[in-house]
Amino acid sequence: MSIPPPECLKSPMHVPSKLLMGPGPSNSPPQVHQAMLKPLLGHLHPEFTQIMDEVKEGLRYLFQTKSDVVCCVSGTGHAGMEATMCNLLEPNDVILIAQNGIWGERAADMASRHEADVRVIKKPAGEIFQLDELEAALKEHRPAVLFLVQGESSSGALQPIYGVGPLCQKYGVLLAVDAVASLGGVPFFMDQWGVDVVYTGTQKVISAPPSMAPIAFSDRAMAKVRARKKPIRSFYADITWLANYWGCDGSPRKYHHTGPVSSVYALREALSLVCAEGLESLWARHAACAQRLHDGLTALNLQLFISDPAKRTPTVTTIKVPEGVDWMKVTKYFMNKYRVEISGGLGPSAGLVWRVGLMGYNCTSDNVDLVLKIMKEALDQQSIITSKL
Amino acid sequence: MSIPPPECLKSPMHVPSKLLMGPGPSNSPPQVHQAMLKPLLGHLHPEFTQIMDEVKEGLRYLFQTKSDVVCCVSGTGHAGMEATMCNLLEPNDVILIAQNGIWGERAADMASRHEADVRVIKKPAGEIFQLDELEAALKEHRPAVLFLVQGESSSGALQPIYGVGPLCQKYGVLLAVDAVASLGGVPFFMDQWGVDVVYTGTQKVISAPPSMAPIAFSDRAMAKVRARKKPIRSFYADITWLANYWGCDGSPRKYHHTGPVSSVYALREALSLVCAEGLESLWARHAACAQRLHDGLTALNLQLFISDPAKRTPTVTTIKVPEGVDWMKVTKYFMNKYRVEISGGLGPSAGLVWRVGLMGYNCTSDNVDLVLKIMKEALDQQSIITSKL
Repeated sequence: MSIPPPECLKSPMHVPSKLLMGPGPSNSPPQVHQAMLKPLLGHLHPEFTQIMDEVKEGLRYLFQTKSDVVCCVSGTGHAGMEATMCNLLEPNDVILIAQNGIWGERAADMASRHEADVRVIKKPAGEIFQLDELEAALKEHRPAVLFLVQGESSSGALQPIYGVGPLCQKYGVLLAVDAVASLGGVPFFMDQWGVDVVYTGTQKVISAPPSMAPIAFSDRAMAKVRARKKPIRSFYADITWLANYWGCDGSPRKYHHTGPVSSVYALREALSLVCAEGLESLWARHAACAQRLHDGLTALNLQLFISDPAKRTPTVTTIKVPEGVDWMKVTKYFMNKYRVEISGGLGPSAGLVWRVGLMGYNCTSDNVDLVLKIMKEALDQQSIITSKL
Repeated sequence: MSIPPPECLKSPMHVPSKLLMGPGPSNSPPQVHQAMLKPLLGHLHPEFTQIMDEVKEGLRYLFQTKSDVVCCVSGTGHAGMEATMCNLLEPNDVILIAQNGIWGERAADMASRHEADVRVIKKPAGEIFQLDELEAALKEHRPAVLFLVQGESSSGALQPIYGVGPLCQKYGVLLAVDAVASLGGVPFFMDQWGVDVVYTGTQKVISAPPSMAPIAFSDRAMAKVRARKKPIRSFYADITWLANYWGCDGSPRKYHHTGPVSSVYALREALSLVCAEGLESLWARHAACAQRLHDGLTALNLQLFISDPAKRTPTVTTIKVPEGVDWMKVTKYFMNKYRVEISGGLGPSAGLVWRVGLMGYNCTSDNVDLVLKIMKEALDQQSIITSKL
């Protein structure tokens, strides 16, 4: 054997316990981990397709939709974004991307790989788009698709979606929404709001491990897919195949790909917890914890990156790094002393902010208080260190 | 709330224990399930990238390669096929696909979605391609890529790969191999055999849950990727990004996508078991169990679909359904009475064969004997039923 077995796999795997209070993944509750102890089933066994059906019902509740096509891409959140782009866009289709952070940038990257005609309207990180601004852009660019990010995790901004759907319908545009970092933490009504495609990730508010990208397509979105002139470039993310595998199209399930069986179990259990709590309670819990965090940060003389509370997603709080403070020393203090993760910025917010996530299982007042306590210590520590220099 | 929480998620999830002796997924050992109990880490935490590095070393052993670019696509086996196509092919690139079952068909589907010039050489299910036939086709079609399936799970055929690499190098062709249903069960030497891209799935011989597609690219393959004129259509499967995230390119890891953390833990533990056993032992175990199964089936007067033992992959045995026997009644007997899965055919072998998988954790003489015992009962049962009609 010219390549011997590696030494590193002879030692036990080392996985420390951490409290993940960054912008995701968040921790999963024990029930969700335990679901993955259950034995594997075949990807088309009736007991497994039953579980897929249950997941689908849970997702219909979470997305607030009666749409037929509600399923999961068997990949993490980015796979949901890619599925949106590769199914909706044909070469030269115009897509309008409202960009105020990294997700709009990634969406533009993906759309351009599909040879779409990518038009971008930009705002600085932390800002959001108003209805009149969106309408002006729709009029100007006449896109086939408008792409918005509900919770921009790089800045902490919450983009209002209410009101955009009717505008899109007026201009014959499909509305696609990235709800990875927001869904379950804030209200979302796919049908009432007129959203045509929405996707999320399992590892945020849902609190399952990162593994799948739940996604829903409206009838209007499916009509565009079915009217395509060119084939969908991806077989794996082809929504017509996925919809069949997930039992959404009324036809017998065909073998598309092997579903990630254990991950589907975990998602099923996580959704059962979401449904047992109820969306109203989940939203209220996120709002209350975010308020407690924001109040506590203000009491520490810290400033939030987004000054208008209405523009903040409760799921990701961005905090300005005060002048003279080394942001990385603070995140290291959190991790090294307490094994608690908070993050620095990302993309346009890199170096400017800390990001604290409050998502699903981790969104509790105890965790908020712990973050505040450590933040105070870390800043005190740093001022001591600074004064020593 | 116009969509109420679904009733179905109020009941506990129902997952029966089954012995999966079909062509995959196969069962995972307890250690592998237990790995998924470990707490989540961030997708770029040093403890997690350490585990990714360990997975990479395990995969280098399994693929028998020193290549830098060894990683996983965060999707199941089909995602590996798609990553191969979308990275290697540009519009109008000629790809030659040796098609003797469903995987060659799917590969042709995927390649054509990428607007490649797809040339197919066909053989009936169960047949394999000889070196002189491949050379003649390379001469005729002058492809950029030759695609072979080592273990064609729809027919049970084992395509020899040895000798194809030098041919491909002679004609300036990249050699891509699907080893989903074979890797670990039969010898495979990426470097020695001159394979340029190889991928597999986690749920076959590796015996982890379906979740990821381990994949390796040679330097020659990466050179083609880097010389592309058009961007790789998929961001999610872009091997240059994946290679960076998996620490294969010597640059600091950037945030590409959120890796499926728990699935990586499971794969790490499964690979540690593979490495502890050693490839020679693993190959010998598969060969011995397959021999035991084939002998036992012959003793039951059943015929194997592939008559030449050298052309059979030990991982998937295809058995001719005798005339007058209802194949589905037999598979139902296995499942209903014993909760053991064996499968019918797939694609070109549908209705003609049963398929029995011997993969990794499930590849034991006890399981072989159990399958033989049930098969005898099922056939006896059916002849009784048949004689009653």
